[in-house]
Amino acid sequence: MSASSSVYAFLGPQGTFTEAALLQVPDAAQSTRVPASNVNAALDKVRDGSVNAAMVPIENSVEGGVTATLDAIAGGGELRIIREVLVPISFVLVARPGVRLADVRRVSTHGHAWAQCRLWMDANIPSAEYVPGSSTAASAMGLLEEGCHYDAAICAPLIARDQPGLSVLAEDIGDNPEAVTRFILVSRPGVLPARTGADKTTLVVPLPEDRPGALMEILDQFASRGVNLSRIESRPTGQYLGDYFFSIDADGHVGDERMADALAGLHRISPATRFLGSYPRADMQAAPVEPHTADQAFQAARAWVAGIFRPADESAESGSPASPKA
Amino acid sequence: MSASSSVYAFLGPQGTFTEAALLQVPDAAQSTRVPASNVNAALDKVRDGSVNAAMVPIENSVEGGVTATLDAIAGGGELRIIREVLVPISFVLVARPGVRLADVRRVSTHGHAWAQCRLWMDANIPSAEYVPGSSTAASAMGLLEEGCHYDAAICAPLIARDQPGLSVLAEDIGDNPEAVTRFILVSRPGVLPARTGADKTTLVVPLPEDRPGALMEILDQFASRGVNLSRIESRPTGQYLGDYFFSIDADGHVGDERMADALAGLHRISPATRFLGSYPRADMQAAPVEPHTADQAFQAARAWVAGIFRPADESAESGSPASPKA
Amino acid sequence: MSASSSVYAFLGPQGTFTEAALLQVPDAAQSTRVPASNVNAALDKVRDGSVNAAMVPIENSVEGGVTATLDAIAGGGELRIIREVLVPISFVLVARPGVRLADVRRVSTHGHAWAQCRLWMDANIPSAEYVPGSSTAASAMGLLEEGCHYDAAICAPLIARDQPGLSVLAEDIGDNPEAVTRFILVSRPGVLPARTGADKTTLVVPLPEDRPGALMEILDQFASRGVNLSRIESRPTGQYLGDYFFSIDADGHVGDERMADALAGLHRISPATRFLGSYPRADMQAAPVEPHTADQAFQAARAWVAGIFRPADESAESGSPASPKA
Amino acid sequence: MSASSSVYAFLGPQGTFTEAALLQVPDAAQSTRVPASNVNAALDKVRDGSVNAAMVPIENSVEGGVTATLDAIAGGGELRIIREVLVPISFVLVARPGVRLADVRRVSTHGHAWAQCRLWMDANIPSAEYVPGSSTAASAMGLLEEGCHYDAAICAPLIARDQPGLSVLAEDIGDNPEAVTRFILVSRPGVLPARTGADKTTLVVPLPEDRPGALMEILDQFASRGVNLSRIESRPTGQYLGDYFFSIDADGHVGDERMADALAGLHRISPATRFLGSYPRADMQAAPVEPHTADQAFQAARAWVAGIFRPADESAESGSPASPKA
Repeated sequence: MSASSSVYAFLGPQGTFTEAALLQVPDAAQSTRVPASNVNAALDKVRDGSVNAAMVPIENSVEGGVTATLDAIAGGGELRIIREVLVPISFVLVARPGVRLADVRRVSTHGHAWAQCRLWMDANIPSAEYVPGSSTAASAMGLLEEGCHYDAAICAPLIARDQPGLSVLAEDIGDNPEAVTRFILVSRPGVLPARTGADKTTLVVPLPEDRPGALMEILDQFASRGVNLSRIESRPTGQYLGDYFFSIDADGHVGDERMADALAGLHRISPATRFLGSYPRADMQAAPVEPHTADQAFQAARAWVAGIFRPADESAESGSPASPKA
Repeated sequence: MSASSSVYAFLGPQGTFTEAALLQVPDAAQSTRVPASNVNAALDKVRDGSVNAAMVPIENSVEGGVTATLDAIAGGGELRIIREVLVPISFVLVARPGVRLADVRRVSTHGHAWAQCRLWMDANIPSAEYVPGSSTAASAMGLLEEGCHYDAAICAPLIARDQPGLSVLAEDIGDNPEAVTRFILVSRPGVLPARTGADKTTLVVPLPEDRPGALMEILDQFASRGVNLSRIESRPTGQYLGDYFFSIDADGHVGDERMADALAGLHRISPATRFLGSYPRADMQAAPVEPHTADQAFQAARAWVAGIFRPADESAESGSPASPKA
Repeated sequence: MSASSSVYAFLGPQGTFTEAALLQVPDAAQSTRVPASNVNAALDKVRDGSVNAAMVPIENSVEGGVTATLDAIAGGGELRIIREVLVPISFVLVARPGVRLADVRRVSTHGHAWAQCRLWMDANIPSAEYVPGSSTAASAMGLLEEGCHYDAAICAPLIARDQPGLSVLAEDIGDNPEAVTRFILVSRPGVLPARTGADKTTLVVPLPEDRPGALMEILDQFASRGVNLSRIESRPTGQYLGDYFFSIDADGHVGDERMADALAGLHRISPATRFLGSYPRADMQAAPVEPHTADQAFQAARAWVAGIFRPADESAESGSPASPKA
Repeated sequence: MSASSSVYAFLGPQGTFTEAALLQVPDAAQSTRVPASNVNAALDKVRDGSVNAAMVPIENSVEGGVTATLDAIAGGGELRIIREVLVPISFVLVARPGVRLADVRRVSTHGHAWAQCRLWMDANIPSAEYVPGSSTAASAMGLLEEGCHYDAAICAPLIARDQPGLSVLAEDIGDNPEAVTRFILVSRPGVLPARTGADKTTLVVPLPEDRPGALMEILDQFASRGVNLSRIESRPTGQYLGDYFFSIDADGHVGDERMADALAGLHRISPATRFLGSYPRADMQAAPVEPHTADQAFQAARAWVAGIFRPADESAESGSPASPKA
């Protein structure tokens, strides 16, 4: 089967940062790429088998977790994250050709993008009014429509580059030049990505009860096995105030003994814990492992316990002292 | 000074759930109420002294923490939460008089409201297109404007009741009838609200380092003193992926010995910990306190340690044995 | 093989509380019973196969752990505890017939026994001088020897009953009428005593390093799996001050999932951990088990983790998204 | 008052290792030294004021804690440890002049000394019979008495050196050449020894209940404040099996903020916790202190919490929002 037979969904429309993330996946550039109008729609295409996988944003260094993704992946049919992609976030201000910065009175973009360009806007066009858009790309493309009621849009460089009907008024207008968004490629459950030694495991752990210490018990499952957490976010279950689940990224692969042992511990404490995948870290940084939490230590421990149950060579009866030798 | 001389800001525009929350504050109905266009603007009015206090949303049972508020209150000039208000969230669909449900093709509202009415929309007007709005009230009021490009809006019952230009097409269209939003009244630092025995303390605790156990150390400061947490949310600091602070609500008042002791422990571990206030719980539910974490136990412990330093009655020199009596 | 073919060693001489403990073992009364001069000698008889098992004291409610036993069982060839026996400790004062209490000037007994009868001695024969004995029975029997240089002995009722040459001057002279000593029956490794639901597991856990938290890590292995400890004693390894091992009794059987899991955790942290046996509790009191630490919870957790590794039904390649269905 | 007016008790008789320890105390060589027949007697002399202080053994690197001392100091009138002394333990075998090693058939000494010379005895005079003695010095001095029923004694070099009636048959017969015993100088409560930066604090902490986690809670009081433990020993309270107290040595001085804070925490959990003194370590090794557990961190934390209660400069009423500035 050729790579081009794969089909990918992504949080659209075309030209968003999410499509930029998808284009980093080796065979995606040659594959069919299907935009989805929201995260749930993208994931449902995976669930119903109409695409191989979907790319969606999960975490932004400025705005935090992408709650729509955290919630969508935590429920419904089981899915697996098989890859993560980091995309530096850089914003441009676009308008129709001929429009000058001084002409701009109304600016549209997605709320998250607006939040990340506040300083630049306050410094350069402080009187501009904000018009909410459903995505950065939708705001940019809206400029091309008849009767558009705003003058400019904040969007990704990708869309501006490909659209001759848009001209760039300003580049790099984001307040934090280090801003980066993390995206995940999501598939149906199947074979796990292989261990690379620099992996990440994503989990959903419902908080079992509103009692002192429940969260500590959860964290202790990781800490007591030397597993570091790189992300932890609380999300409401939607049932009532104070009912949470935690979305967690932990360093390591479920194929690591310490991770598998931690997952078993989590399942005991919170049986509805959901495994969302083990996959290579985008930064390929391996976390250091102490000897007593290495695979070898777990295997030796298991062998030692098994040995306790093995009858000794000499004859012996259950519960009775061994026979004297002579 | 009469109560009517107070001035309150709130996250506007008028008619939002936030104004409904503010109206629950005893003297607010008779006071001047100033809408603010966003949370930062509302809080800045408090900081610069132009209002006495501001009401903003902080947590929604369905959508989770209100990140704009969590972030705004965590930085900038110090502020204090002096009251919390719970408002049941009930949505109505409004349109101009004469418009029927069957006529609705485009619906505007705030993204959070849209997310909470998805099931009803899918069941009743599945083909309706979503038009993002900056607030539920703005979407509703937009219907009254010339050239409005949508047909209906989802908003709070409050605004529909007061606007003769709007008619209600459907009531209680929220997917979760138990949905509730928590609002906070924020003031400048000053005298603390008095202990009631059923109080809540809100804190911002930066995660000191990305190491296994840092979050556990933070949680242990509460757990080891018997302080229960009713809310914990991670938020990115905006610096880089994985750099967090935690927004925490803990049961009790800083005037409780166990809470003051926990705060001292937090400050040691994370010196940039910020105290955002101790105030009465909206539900007036007192948490049970075990004897060894009651005020009396802390006071007795302090007295006991102090006694160790008190010289005995008999004469004694530092480091030398006491003199014999005879 | 008839029960009478078994051979038991015990910490002698005859007539000590240890022999009383051994007589509680069903077939021991009809078996050959061999006194040993000290705990090491008794255990060496087990190790070299010359007896089936040995009875030795391990813990006294007044004097604490029997350090000779704790140390002897912690090192050398591996042994297994297969039974525990509790013996109420009651002391009598004996002398040769004709000797009256008023005549007693020197009293011999084992140091532990002397410590437990101090109040009675101070109240009744305060001027009596103490003569150390190597055991209570040795002191009693010494009275029958030519040229004995003391007048009375403190010993177990058992020896006084069987010796016509001794008369009892006073009974129940122990200071604590609730005093009890716990004895253990030790065998070579073989088949484990069966689970009864009210079991105890004895372990030797060397403290891995002199660092803050090492002991807590050990205790956490039990606590995090809901395993209660009924005894914990520190013992020096004999190498240098501050180098310890811990002798621990934990509620439950290694055949319980939670205990086996705790043992594996201990082995990782302290690889020289030694398993000394799982055996029925003398008091037959079963400890309550919470659902999330029951066997079923561990088995379910293991099955869940195993399921993560199982390929889904649909074809999939490692690291690649699953093929689309159509 | 001259130093020579001090009076010291010690666990006698003269010539024991305990007197050797006492002679290391600067003014003790010129002071009156009173031997006591047992630890309780020595401590009672301190309690009733008949001596300034008493030297008693507390811990042996081979035999472990000296239970008589651990128990005696844990109860009764309050006492304070003001100094510790380490004495290398070296044993000699003595007899009356003219006796040769080949003549020795019965050897007397204290049980602890016998245990520490077993290998030498087995290798050199394996057939020698053991005769229990109440102390090493008593066994040695007994050789000088009429009608002594043993031929040699194991004792400290000190006594052999001073007694012309004894000759040394063998030196350095202890099995562990590194053996050392730790002694403590005990006084009545008075002024604390000054902080040196390399101090030790001794505590008695009753285990509050036989529940999972009680010991962990105790240890957490130290660990969470970065206080290292150099010794922990469990002792039975004497009430019933499983009722313990812990004898603990912790690095640091109660004048260190982290230690005072830990003590307050212990008192809450176990109100009968007893402080037995802060005093300089014999090895003068200072433990490293992390910044967040240094005095400065505790003082800064306390100041920060106090600041929360301080009214701001602007006028404000309890529970009410601050007045607007204009």
